[in-house]
Amino acid sequence: MELRIKDVKIEAGRPIAFINKRNAQKLGLRIGERVQIFQNGQRTVATADISNQINEKEIALSKEILDYVKINFNKPAKILLAMEPQSTRYITKKLQGKTLSKDEIFSIIKDIVNNSLTEAEIAYFVSAVYEHGMSFKETLDLTEAIYKTGVQLSWHDKKVADKHSIGGIAGNRTTPIVVSICSSAGIVMPKTSSRAITSASGTADVIEVLSKVDFPANKLKEIVRKTNACLAWGGSLGLAPADDKLIRVERLLNLDPEAQLLASIMSKKLAAGSKYVLIDIPYGPQAKVSKAEAQKLKQKFLKIAKHFKLRMKVLITLGDQPIGNGIGPVLEMIDVLKVLKQENQPMDLESKSIHLAAEILEMIGKAKKGKGEFIARSILETGAALEKFNEIINAQGRKNEDFHLGKYRHEIKSSKEGKIAVLDNRAINTLARILGCPEDKRAGIYIHKHKPEPVRKDEILFTLYAESKDKLKEALLFLNTSRIISII
Amino acid sequence: MELRIKDVKIEAGRPIAFINKRNAQKLGLRIGERVQIFQNGQRTVATADISNQINEKEIALSKEILDYVKINFNKPAKILLAMEPQSTRYITKKLQGKTLSKDEIFSIIKDIVNNSLTEAEIAYFVSAVYEHGMSFKETLDLTEAIYKTGVQLSWHDKKVADKHSIGGIAGNRTTPIVVSICSSAGIVMPKTSSRAITSASGTADVIEVLSKVDFPANKLKEIVRKTNACLAWGGSLGLAPADDKLIRVERLLNLDPEAQLLASIMSKKLAAGSKYVLIDIPYGPQAKVSKAEAQKLKQKFLKIAKHFKLRMKVLITLGDQPIGNGIGPVLEMIDVLKVLKQENQPMDLESKSIHLAAEILEMIGKAKKGKGEFIARSILETGAALEKFNEIINAQGRKNEDFHLGKYRHEIKSSKEGKIAVLDNRAINTLARILGCPEDKRAGIYIHKHKPEPVRKDEILFTLYAESKDKLKEALLFLNTSRIISII
Repeated sequence: MELRIKDVKIEAGRPIAFINKRNAQKLGLRIGERVQIFQNGQRTVATADISNQINEKEIALSKEILDYVKINFNKPAKILLAMEPQSTRYITKKLQGKTLSKDEIFSIIKDIVNNSLTEAEIAYFVSAVYEHGMSFKETLDLTEAIYKTGVQLSWHDKKVADKHSIGGIAGNRTTPIVVSICSSAGIVMPKTSSRAITSASGTADVIEVLSKVDFPANKLKEIVRKTNACLAWGGSLGLAPADDKLIRVERLLNLDPEAQLLASIMSKKLAAGSKYVLIDIPYGPQAKVSKAEAQKLKQKFLKIAKHFKLRMKVLITLGDQPIGNGIGPVLEMIDVLKVLKQENQPMDLESKSIHLAAEILEMIGKAKKGKGEFIARSILETGAALEKFNEIINAQGRKNEDFHLGKYRHEIKSSKEGKIAVLDNRAINTLARILGCPEDKRAGIYIHKHKPEPVRKDEILFTLYAESKDKLKEALLFLNTSRIISII
Repeated sequence: MELRIKDVKIEAGRPIAFINKRNAQKLGLRIGERVQIFQNGQRTVATADISNQINEKEIALSKEILDYVKINFNKPAKILLAMEPQSTRYITKKLQGKTLSKDEIFSIIKDIVNNSLTEAEIAYFVSAVYEHGMSFKETLDLTEAIYKTGVQLSWHDKKVADKHSIGGIAGNRTTPIVVSICSSAGIVMPKTSSRAITSASGTADVIEVLSKVDFPANKLKEIVRKTNACLAWGGSLGLAPADDKLIRVERLLNLDPEAQLLASIMSKKLAAGSKYVLIDIPYGPQAKVSKAEAQKLKQKFLKIAKHFKLRMKVLITLGDQPIGNGIGPVLEMIDVLKVLKQENQPMDLESKSIHLAAEILEMIGKAKKGKGEFIARSILETGAALEKFNEIINAQGRKNEDFHLGKYRHEIKSSKEGKIAVLDNRAINTLARILGCPEDKRAGIYIHKHKPEPVRKDEILFTLYAESKDKLKEALLFLNTSRIISII
């Protein structure tokens, strides 16, 4: 059947085609089934919603398809019923605990990319990997499948570096500082970051306070050519698109099977064309992993990196409390600027950033062994890092600065004298999300006291910021039942 | 936020709310997240699609919600962001292999019914049960949760009977015959059946050839009052609504975890108000279970029935080939009518139907032990069963009969002389679906030879029927690579 494509400006979070009931009957299409859409030699698959708002000569597609596929709205497209994809059999095979071949893994990942698998089918795949794990060979194949089914960037310069934290620590906004220091030293750092998945904010959400973060690949290359670096959002570049969809399904239950965590990070680094990669694995009681797990994960990272001929260093860092004082996009940007300007900066954020930058400088030969920290600190103290950061922000299109914080505020004071013993990362993240992060950029938490600082009775422990009264109220309700700070 | 509800006549196969982008921002709603809709003391949850086709004063709901919830289109509804449901934690707990409490199981099932869980989250639950199984206690709780979260029918007469086959055998359309025989003998049989899930047709698809099958509960009761029985589709009655959603997600991978199979069948029988239940478990190489598995399943059925005070008999029957000659809605209805009219009937279908009816007659005391088959056969041979069947069809609203078969036909002949050794149920089902079943009611397969009949070279083995040339072509392609019949 041939139908003209229509844009009805619907965002569904997943690829949807809207089709007239009579056309659905002609195709033998039932609700929840998928159609194939052929145009200009391209094939796209979408789940079909049936609607008589759409006339019989048209098919409407949701934004998720129109954003990624070049459509000719004047030429009809060929529409066919999509058969159940072969890859569902491989998902069942994995659910049964069997090992998948490289072809089978590629088949699953390709079908995730071209929308042939629904979110429920992807959930079956995620739980199969969660339940049965993956062999080292399967993990390699998964990594390769994820990066080869997306856009791959390449760079003239061989010394392209990247850093990555497996996450889980509130604040911890080292990336803008590390990138500014390293690119100021001449290292190419085309850094792409995610938006918040389950945390209060991602690096992309924080940078967006000051500039655009959303660029097509050619514009991104231009920014890197001009400044040696970028601080962009990875989402719209099409690097490792399967991973984005896997993450969306994983986060429903906050599942993060190890093989997928490894493949997710490694595939993005490979797709971004990095040659030198620094991985930060924070450990601790409310971090993603314990110290022992971190050690094991480190070995796996190194083994995969070796296979793909990446130079890699893995740091295992203590992640037993938030790093920096601000939690939330604007609050974290304020912390980053304080470090870059060397004015009243949070020392934990500064020293971790210097430590990470030093490792990259040494790995790439911009500093002799043992001299990395000294050089990183000089770059920061002389203002060279700040200058580089401003260059990047300008190249990305600087916005009018606005560091106003949420107008609904509340101070939490200490009920007793003592010493901070616990600052719960997870509870702080949840609290920040209830306050409106990351959508409400001015919402969040300012932490006045870290571990193991002493506090007096009635001293302020943290300040809450929200953009609406309701969200502040919700946050206070949450605080009634959850303890985010312990004083002994 | 208060918005007026709008019907945009969209069927999405899942509950969707369409909301304006600005309203989404005000709510802090992100794509893929859910909203709560409050009106008249009712609370409904729906995943939100964002669309500027919807104005800022309105929210549009898909058919899946509008069909089940009473909406006042003139009064605004209160719209709130839905938080992540608590039940996702219990799903994670089950994925980790832990046992769920009754409250936790009820929480999951309630959230499935009120749409708080997405299909991907339901898929996580299905795979958790698939991977870890359920204890007997959990299976009881699951059964109870599924039937108590839906409509429950009740009947004045205590002798309400039902039959159920766990399925997996092509053809096997005994239900209309058994119901006609038993209700003719005075037993109340308010039979509700499903449409095809993974098979070529369900009982509801077959009955629909002759009459309506889709009734609200009060109309169904009226039909049963008039005729002692019905042959209805269970879907729109709202019996065990969680089960319908579970099945939709299970069938994506054709998963059928045992605990869910048990709970699915038992909850529907309990919801339908049955007191006497006959279960048919066909076993065989291409059936759902082997003979040993059938024995184990039987014990579990009996144990659950005892708990819920149901009188139950479980038959284990040989299911190593299709039963009856026709596969597909019209072809199966022709077989049923041949048995009822006692004209040129397929003997396998007749004798299985008599066997099942006899068990019900004996169980309920309408026939003495050992006399059931004799009585069932008399009811069939005297035409009383045919008369009762016509009564039921008339009460359900008889359509104009039309037994034309698909106009694209193809005969498959034997390439050699020998004896039929294998007739593959699964491959026959797949072939019938490729031919267009169950949507194309006239499509299907007529089987001329069963096991262990002898065949001559060039004798017709089966005839294919399709409504379109393309589907017939696809079926022939399938036959090139799949063997559905073996001759030795």
